[in-house]
Amino acid sequence: MSHLPETPEEKLALITRNLQEVIGADLIRKKLEGGEVVKCYWGSATTGRPHIGYFVPLTKIADFLNAGVEVTILLADVHAILDNLKAPVELVAHRVDYYRHVLTGVFRTIGVPVERLRFVVGSSYQLTAKYTMDNFRLCANVTEHDAKRAGAEVVKQVESPLLAGLLYPGMQALDEEYLGVDFQFGGVDQRKIFVFAEEVLPKLGYAKRAHLMNRMVPGLAGGKMSSSDPNSKIDFLDSPADVKKKIKAAFCEEGNVADNGILAFANAVLFPISRLRLAIAASGAPDDGGVKPFVTEGAPEGTVFSIGRKAEWGGPLHYKTYEELEQDFAEKKVHPGDLKAGVQEAIINLLAPLHRLFAEDSAFREAEAKAYPPPEPVKKAKKEKKQRVIPPAKTGTLATDAERTAEGQNGINDTPGQGETEEIVKKVEQVRLTNPTA
Amino acid sequence: MSHLPETPEEKLALITRNLQEVIGADLIRKKLEGGEVVKCYWGSATTGRPHIGYFVPLTKIADFLNAGVEVTILLADVHAILDNLKAPVELVAHRVDYYRHVLTGVFRTIGVPVERLRFVVGSSYQLTAKYTMDNFRLCANVTEHDAKRAGAEVVKQVESPLLAGLLYPGMQALDEEYLGVDFQFGGVDQRKIFVFAEEVLPKLGYAKRAHLMNRMVPGLAGGKMSSSDPNSKIDFLDSPADVKKKIKAAFCEEGNVADNGILAFANAVLFPISRLRLAIAASGAPDDGGVKPFVTEGAPEGTVFSIGRKAEWGGPLHYKTYEELEQDFAEKKVHPGDLKAGVQEAIINLLAPLHRLFAEDSAFREAEAKAYPPPEPVKKAKKEKKQRVIPPAKTGTLATDAERTAEGQNGINDTPGQGETEEIVKKVEQVRLTNPTA
Repeated sequence: MSHLPETPEEKLALITRNLQEVIGADLIRKKLEGGEVVKCYWGSATTGRPHIGYFVPLTKIADFLNAGVEVTILLADVHAILDNLKAPVELVAHRVDYYRHVLTGVFRTIGVPVERLRFVVGSSYQLTAKYTMDNFRLCANVTEHDAKRAGAEVVKQVESPLLAGLLYPGMQALDEEYLGVDFQFGGVDQRKIFVFAEEVLPKLGYAKRAHLMNRMVPGLAGGKMSSSDPNSKIDFLDSPADVKKKIKAAFCEEGNVADNGILAFANAVLFPISRLRLAIAASGAPDDGGVKPFVTEGAPEGTVFSIGRKAEWGGPLHYKTYEELEQDFAEKKVHPGDLKAGVQEAIINLLAPLHRLFAEDSAFREAEAKAYPPPEPVKKAKKEKKQRVIPPAKTGTLATDAERTAEGQNGINDTPGQGETEEIVKKVEQVRLTNPTA
Repeated sequence: MSHLPETPEEKLALITRNLQEVIGADLIRKKLEGGEVVKCYWGSATTGRPHIGYFVPLTKIADFLNAGVEVTILLADVHAILDNLKAPVELVAHRVDYYRHVLTGVFRTIGVPVERLRFVVGSSYQLTAKYTMDNFRLCANVTEHDAKRAGAEVVKQVESPLLAGLLYPGMQALDEEYLGVDFQFGGVDQRKIFVFAEEVLPKLGYAKRAHLMNRMVPGLAGGKMSSSDPNSKIDFLDSPADVKKKIKAAFCEEGNVADNGILAFANAVLFPISRLRLAIAASGAPDDGGVKPFVTEGAPEGTVFSIGRKAEWGGPLHYKTYEELEQDFAEKKVHPGDLKAGVQEAIINLLAPLHRLFAEDSAFREAEAKAYPPPEPVKKAKKEKKQRVIPPAKTGTLATDAERTAEGQNGINDTPGQGETEEIVKKVEQVRLTNPTA
């Protein structure tokens, strides 16, 4: 897109493009036609460590921001505590801080306007008397059966499900009201929760909201990006060497476009971001140190994505649209090794400005260090090869993590005690007080 | 008992007498032997309208108070809202007020020391950030299965159970911690919740408490006192004529001592209270306008309960113990009509000082009027027979009400809206602020 949308139709088109499903588009259209600011939220439980799979929703959120939508990012710390009692409670506050740094950094480096972006920490309102009373009212209006059905795709179905899993859908519904939004955005795996929210809010006297759903993007190793296989997840702070290693390990079968995490990432993230950056460059804006378009020198006019194939294999490839790349790959005109090389280069390029931010911003570095302290040394460390230890902690977003309850199950014996509860209430209050609006 | 207990053994004996089951007596014994004040709580959801079935737990609570125990009565307004959304939210605050008046009045008129009695309104702490976080932690530690099993006897088992029903057991466990008690008291129908509480509190880093259980007392019509049959419930403010009518309608089969609400009430309430009042009279204390012992003039020394049978049927009967009365009834030496007459007389006697309080205390009368306003006039009232309209609202205590969720089920369409939620938060805060310690 070479210009920001101006008419309600253009804005609605940008807001809803590339989605798998939209429920309630009329609600949004009416607001736009009335000249009102449309508001939305996307939530992420601050459970683990955000990975580059987060670029998928963030790239779509860039559309919302470019369409003038006021976007709230819910840093769902209470959900994180509901999820995973093995993460000590004080860590959760640090993780909230780290998530904020990373996500802000991503928006800065891809160059979307962030004036209409705000972060809200869940505990800033989910522990208030009013919300708690509404949560109780909701629980008196919802059957176990309906709550379970709503969470069926997002809450891991285990033999002895925890009570916490039944609370997520209702809280996610209440969040729409408490964050004052017109629509909620998430992966299509949230569909049942979204439909549930549309049913339950009116029962409490609140308006139902619209719901916009991204398609699910497989992880680089295939399957969900949030899978617990660390090779499927590239960390935001992974070095170029780490990126290369993980891309090399990724599943990418010649001609197979159906189950291909590399292609999916190119489609959902690399093409849109490159297009966005090309538009910024074309507008004559000064270089803001952000992501470079994924286009090599000498590419023909209109190229959005280049693969720097060696001359002996046919020379560089240039694509104006993702569909052309997919077709070439399907027809085996692009070899998996070349696709991987191109995507790997783009990802390294994509992460470079974030790494510069990290190097320059001591608060960002401190947040990372506190959020992911090195594990307690075991009796005898076998090898000390790596510089930065990434714990294999579960990483998840409300949008894509189907394994939310998996770890909580076993966390019974190392749960925080009384003193620690007071501490987290204190901690989350600190977070609330220092919660900047990005 | 003619004197208050002094030694730890005497105190423990009084605390635990006449109960069906005690779990954790050692916890209480240790406190007593250490010279510490023992603390307990009993909870009642302020859902409906308290009836004289409440004399059963209150009579046992009189033992606790006489043994020097610090007793907290939890007026569980949040539970009431979880229970019964058909009761408009502002009513719940008024009902809390009415419950407090009635229960305080009962303790005053039966003459137990109330310095160690306090009322706590549930919403004064159950909506705080710390409690809410603990409730979430609990939900992340408890399986649906365990929560359901814990509530099996107290939460009505319906085809589509509400989510609210799964929250009661956990909250009842947390209340023990938040009210700072050594034991919780309730009917034996609470047994599964109590055992659940003993299991779950240590998982959250809190100490497990002892649990004291009263036997279940059938209602006057047979079955639970809290049944929705209004004839099984004598209201605290029922006139002598109403009492007579309801006792007349009660099931009381000649010689049947097993299923006999009249005998059960005599055992659980009338004998203990009469004994208590006799002891107060024997101590030479001035007449405090309280309940008169249920002993007619001319009764032999040691009589605790008299039945004023007419001379033509054999003249008055006098009993020193309940067991003697039960044996006589089993052997058909006491006719149901005579038993009913004696119990009816005692109940009228029992309620008289409370009625005087009601007549003298305008705040008590106002609380009643606001808590149970007459129903909106229907298009055409058929007959206006009664003076005071008792709505057939469900009345329940945490201790005896097995039907807690029954009415909430249908309350979906007339639930309070957004504005009203704010109102109840305000209301419960008012209640909290004006919450006197009796």
